[in-house]
Amino acid sequence: MVAKLEGDEKRRALDTLTGWDEARDGDAIQKTFQFKDFTQAFGWMTSAAILAEKADHHPEWFNVYNKVEVTLTTHDVGGLSDRDIALAKQFDAIK
Amino acid sequence: MVAKLEGDEKRRALDTLTGWDEARDGDAIQKTFQFKDFTQAFGWMTSAAILAEKADHHPEWFNVYNKVEVTLTTHDVGGLSDRDIALAKQFDAIK
Repeated sequence: MVAKLEGDEKRRALDTLTGWDEARDGDAIQKTFQFKDFTQAFGWMTSAAILAEKADHHPEWFNVYNKVEVTLTTHDVGGLSDRDIALAKQFDAIK
Repeated sequence: MVAKLEGDEKRRALDTLTGWDEARDGDAIQKTFQFKDFTQAFGWMTSAAILAEKADHHPEWFNVYNKVEVTLTTHDVGGLSDRDIALAKQFDAIK
């Protein structure tokens, strides 16, 4: 069962991330990943897509050339959950 | 040399496309592709990415789960060119 992160618990969880900003009134986190070129950007997206599918938790993301803007939120709880924090860390780890 | 499509030439070019709408005051075209699930959507994106890189012409695109919103424009001419029309057709062909 996934729970919405709130208050101190949310603050502590966000403090474990680097470069992710709160968005949508704190109900989502966002980060822009930058790469050398399109092939590098899309290569990273491909790895990230596999991790997302494996976690059964999917990003909202926008790509233009060498940039990928990623938004993570948990629709089931109407905000952030541990699943977003975990996927954010996985995305960072493959950058 | 790539030229900006305008007037009748632009109209005729757009008429050869199906499901693409003008955006950004006619300087871009957009289409939303819908799939069964994330894996199908990202699989299509992967094929499209290879075509884009091969054409050296890249989309702006947004994906959330089974949807991909694609925007095509030619920055070098500040509007639409034959390159957008050609890539739109390639993207349609692999859907």
